[in-house]
Amino acid sequence: MQQKSLKVVILGAGNVGTQLGKALKKVGIEIIEVWSRNTHSASTLAKELECSYRINLLEVSPHADIYLYTLKDEVIGNIAHALPFRNGLHLHTAGSLGLDVFPKELLHTGVFYPFQTFSKEKEVDFSNVPILIESRDKNDRATMHGLAKELSEQVYDADAETRLTVHVSGVFACNFTNHLYAIAKELLEERGLPFSIITPLIEETVTKLKSLTPKEAQTGPAIRGDISVMHKHEALLNNKKEWREIYHLISDDIQKMR
Amino acid sequence: MQQKSLKVVILGAGNVGTQLGKALKKVGIEIIEVWSRNTHSASTLAKELECSYRINLLEVSPHADIYLYTLKDEVIGNIAHALPFRNGLHLHTAGSLGLDVFPKELLHTGVFYPFQTFSKEKEVDFSNVPILIESRDKNDRATMHGLAKELSEQVYDADAETRLTVHVSGVFACNFTNHLYAIAKELLEERGLPFSIITPLIEETVTKLKSLTPKEAQTGPAIRGDISVMHKHEALLNNKKEWREIYHLISDDIQKMR
Repeated sequence: MQQKSLKVVILGAGNVGTQLGKALKKVGIEIIEVWSRNTHSASTLAKELECSYRINLLEVSPHADIYLYTLKDEVIGNIAHALPFRNGLHLHTAGSLGLDVFPKELLHTGVFYPFQTFSKEKEVDFSNVPILIESRDKNDRATMHGLAKELSEQVYDADAETRLTVHVSGVFACNFTNHLYAIAKELLEERGLPFSIITPLIEETVTKLKSLTPKEAQTGPAIRGDISVMHKHEALLNNKKEWREIYHLISDDIQKMR
Repeated sequence: MQQKSLKVVILGAGNVGTQLGKALKKVGIEIIEVWSRNTHSASTLAKELECSYRINLLEVSPHADIYLYTLKDEVIGNIAHALPFRNGLHLHTAGSLGLDVFPKELLHTGVFYPFQTFSKEKEVDFSNVPILIESRDKNDRATMHGLAKELSEQVYDADAETRLTVHVSGVFACNFTNHLYAIAKELLEERGLPFSIITPLIEETVTKLKSLTPKEAQTGPAIRGDISVMHKHEALLNNKKEWREIYHLISDDIQKMR
């Protein structure tokens, strides 16, 4: 199947649906319809993608090649069950769900998981977004591979277990680092200092990853084994039990990884 | 005192000395001499800064306005003691040391702490580097402020306690986040996946800080209270006691900050 001639219906008009829809349109994939329960979201995205939209699931076109579920994890199964036809290749974008979320009657299903954090407003450069795919059928996998390759340079086959690992890694490197930024912000603001004092350091820490591994790039009291500074830091965190524990635990682990 | 007419001697020719020296020269400050115990480092930096260099501390010029100690914490006091003159404004760049590291006979001393991570090879854009300064004397402080302002848009007065807070924040937002990248890398590589799969997400997490606070930007299972996903993640970390503890502790703290 030629990717460029694929007809796609997007189910859902949230962050992922919006960004993925725009990216697909940009590379010349034909989006024929957007479905969302929410009229405003559906019509807004349809306008952007220059296609029609549906609110009623029973009216969704049965003539697409691909149905792309960009929905919350907990509704994917229900929507798939409720669609009044069984043809087409049905793909969801939820990293932590498997193929078994789809009803058995659907013969062509897959997971099409773009590994990035999305917001509605901020345009995403998909060429830079890894896409993880899974499908039982060889031909379906080839179709998905072709589609993913249109969008991104990084395309990987990944089963549920692999996606879970990728997801956990993302929690550490994205959600948890973001929480450490939140802690830093509170510490600074208690002293009347703006968060901007630390953003150059945050940016440089990420820039270093272009030329060094995280292990090589590590600096600071823990990797130096500078116990006197670490004691001063823990004393300063005296009133913050949880943060002192986080400080202690990560410092220990840094020293173990040396 | 006009900043542009200041004569500076740099003591030390490591990462900080190199980057600070180059930045000062760039904005037109006259570096008259570099001193380092290490002939190669001294001559390399002196060549770069188009000035002379000394290996013998007793030969360091007594005619500079500013002596900038870009040395390891533990040697600053000794070098200050060993210098054969007492004139000039003596500044060190060590965030975790106070003014008391200098001998009492030095009447003009200060801390000039650029809050960034430096390496010898990678040029630093100082306009973006916060500089924290401390001095007892009002005039000295004014001189330091002027010098710092030549380099950077972000200049702050900061006593030892404030610098300690800034330093701890840096440990959380730089050293610890870097360690979380190291953990993510190991998790991915155990599954045969390259670290590059996660760098777009890391970069986006930092980019988001331009428009959102870390608290607003938070995503992931902990902030959603998605216990079933968190259980799956902890099960996957079954053989990594420390990482499971880190996972647990930070997830808890994210939920507390909601």
